[in-house]
Amino acid sequence: MCEANVYLLEDNGTEVLILDSVDRVIPNNDEILLENIYNERKIVKARIKEMELVNHRIILEKIDN
Amino acid sequence: MCEANVYLLEDNGTEVLILDSVDRVIPNNDEILLENIYNERKIVKARIKEMELVNHRIILEKIDN
Repeated sequence: MCEANVYLLEDNGTEVLILDSVDRVIPNNDEILLENIYNERKIVKARIKEMELVNHRIILEKIDN
Repeated sequence: MCEANVYLLEDNGTEVLILDSVDRVIPNNDEILLENIYNERKIVKARIKEMELVNHRIILEKIDN
Protein backbone atom coordinates (compact mmCIF):
# COMPACT_ATOMS: atom_id res chain seq x y z
CA MET A 1 0.00 0.00 0.00
CA CYS A 2 1.23 3.43 -0.85
CA GLU A 3 -0.22 5.63 1.80
CA ALA A 4 1.98 8.21 3.54
CA ASN A 5 2.55 9.53 7.02
CA VAL A 6 1.79 13.21 7.44
CA TYR A 7 3.92 15.34 9.76
CA LEU A 8 3.62 18.94 10.86
CA LEU A 9 6.88 20.86 11.08
CA GLU A 10 7.00 22.70 14.40
CA ASP A 11 8.75 26.03 14.93
CA ASN A 12 11.63 24.28 16.71
CA GLY A 13 12.23 22.05 13.69
CA THR A 14 10.70 18.86 15.04
CA GLU A 15 8.24 16.91 12.93
CA VAL A 16 5.06 15.85 14.73
CA LEU A 17 3.04 13.00 13.26
CA ILE A 18 -0.45 14.26 12.45
CA LEU A 19 -1.96 11.21 10.77
CA ASP A 20 -0.52 7.94 9.53
CA SER A 21 -1.47 5.81 6.52
CA VAL A 22 -2.93 8.76 4.63
CA ASP A 23 -4.48 8.03 1.26
CA ARG A 24 -6.25 11.24 0.27
CA VAL A 25 -4.98 14.79 0.63
CA ILE A 26 -7.18 17.67 -0.47
CA PRO A 27 -5.91 21.22 0.01
CA ASN A 28 -8.55 23.95 0.30
CA ASN A 29 -7.36 27.50 0.77
CA ASP A 30 -5.28 27.46 3.95
CA GLU A 31 -6.57 24.10 5.17
CA ILE A 32 -5.73 20.56 4.18
CA LEU A 33 -8.10 17.63 4.50
CA LEU A 34 -6.34 14.35 5.26
CA GLU A 35 -8.06 10.97 5.04
CA ASN A 36 -6.33 7.72 5.80
CA ILE A 37 -7.01 4.14 4.82
CA TYR A 38 -8.96 3.61 8.06
CA ASN A 39 -11.34 6.43 7.09
CA GLU A 40 -9.99 8.70 9.79
CA ARG A 41 -10.09 12.35 8.77
CA LYS A 42 -8.28 15.41 9.96
CA ILE A 43 -8.38 19.00 8.79
CA VAL A 44 -5.17 20.90 9.42
CA LYS A 45 -4.54 24.61 8.99
CA ALA A 46 -1.28 24.27 7.11
CA ARG A 47 0.26 23.95 3.70
CA ILE A 48 2.33 21.27 2.06
CA LYS A 49 6.04 21.93 2.44
CA GLU A 50 7.39 18.80 0.81
CA MET A 51 6.41 15.27 -0.11
CA GLU A 52 8.69 12.25 -0.45
CA LEU A 53 6.35 9.55 -1.62
CA VAL A 54 8.89 6.75 -1.87
CA ASN A 55 9.70 7.40 1.81
CA HIS A 56 5.97 7.68 2.64
CA ARG A 57 6.47 11.18 4.02
CA ILE A 58 4.43 14.35 3.66
CA ILE A 59 5.64 17.38 5.57
CA LEU A 60 3.22 20.21 6.36
CA GLU A 61 4.17 23.64 7.63
CA LYS A 62 2.12 26.14 9.55
CA ILE A 63 0.80 29.16 7.74
CA ASP A 64 2.22 32.49 8.88
CA ASN A 65 -0.43 34.88 10.06
CA MET B 1 7.60 1.63 -4.97
CA CYS B 2 5.17 4.27 -3.96
CA GLU B 3 5.65 7.00 -6.46
CA ALA B 4 2.64 8.68 -8.09
CA ASN B 5 1.58 9.86 -11.51
CA VAL B 6 0.89 13.58 -11.70
CA TYR B 7 -1.90 14.88 -13.91
CA LEU B 8 -2.97 18.39 -14.81
CA LEU B 9 -6.72 18.95 -14.97
CA GLU B 10 -7.55 20.80 -18.18
CA ASP B 11 -10.42 23.26 -18.55
CA ASN B 12 -12.45 20.66 -20.45
CA GLY B 13 -12.16 18.21 -17.57
CA THR B 14 -9.56 15.89 -19.06
CA GLU B 15 -6.52 14.90 -17.04
CA VAL B 16 -3.21 15.19 -18.86
CA LEU B 17 -0.24 13.23 -17.55
CA ILE B 18 2.54 15.66 -16.64
CA LEU B 19 5.09 13.31 -15.11
CA ASP B 20 4.99 9.67 -14.06
CA SER B 21 6.71 7.90 -11.17
CA VAL B 22 6.96 11.08 -9.10
CA ASP B 23 8.71 10.80 -5.76
CA ARG B 24 9.17 14.38 -4.58
CA VAL B 25 6.66 17.21 -4.76
CA ILE B 26 7.64 20.63 -3.48
CA PRO B 27 5.13 23.48 -3.77
CA ASN B 28 6.55 27.00 -3.86
CA ASN B 29 4.13 29.89 -4.15
CA ASP B 30 2.18 29.22 -7.34
CA GLU B 31 4.62 26.68 -8.75
CA ILE B 32 5.18 23.02 -7.97
CA LEU B 33 8.46 21.21 -8.43
CA LEU B 34 8.04 17.56 -9.38
CA GLU B 35 10.89 15.08 -9.32
CA ASN B 36 10.51 11.45 -10.30
CA ILE B 37 12.48 8.33 -9.50
CA TYR B 38 14.46 8.75 -12.75
CA ASN B 39 15.61 12.19 -11.59
CA GLU B 40 13.48 13.94 -14.18
CA ARG B 41 12.22 17.29 -12.96
CA LYS B 42 9.38 19.53 -13.99
CA ILE B 43 8.17 22.82 -12.63
CA VAL B 44 4.47 23.43 -13.18
CA LYS B 45 2.49 26.60 -12.55
CA ALA B 46 -0.38 24.95 -10.74
CA ARG B 47 -1.65 23.91 -7.37
CA ILE B 48 -2.55 20.55 -5.91
CA LYS B 49 -6.24 19.79 -6.27
CA GLU B 50 -6.31 16.29 -4.83
CA MET B 51 -4.07 13.36 -4.11
CA GLU B 52 -5.05 9.69 -3.97
CA LEU B 53 -1.86 7.99 -2.92
CA VAL B 54 -3.19 4.45 -2.86
CA ASN B 55 -4.20 4.95 -6.49
CA HIS B 56 -0.85 6.65 -7.26
CA ARG B 57 -2.65 9.77 -8.46
CA ILE B 58 -1.93 13.44 -7.90
CA ILE B 59 -4.20 15.91 -9.65
CA LEU B 60 -3.03 19.47 -10.25
CA GLU B 61 -5.20 22.36 -11.34
CA LYS B 62 -4.25 25.55 -13.10
CA ILE B 63 -4.12 28.74 -11.12
CA ASP B 64 -6.69 31.35 -12.09
CA ASN B 65 -5.12 34.62 -13.10
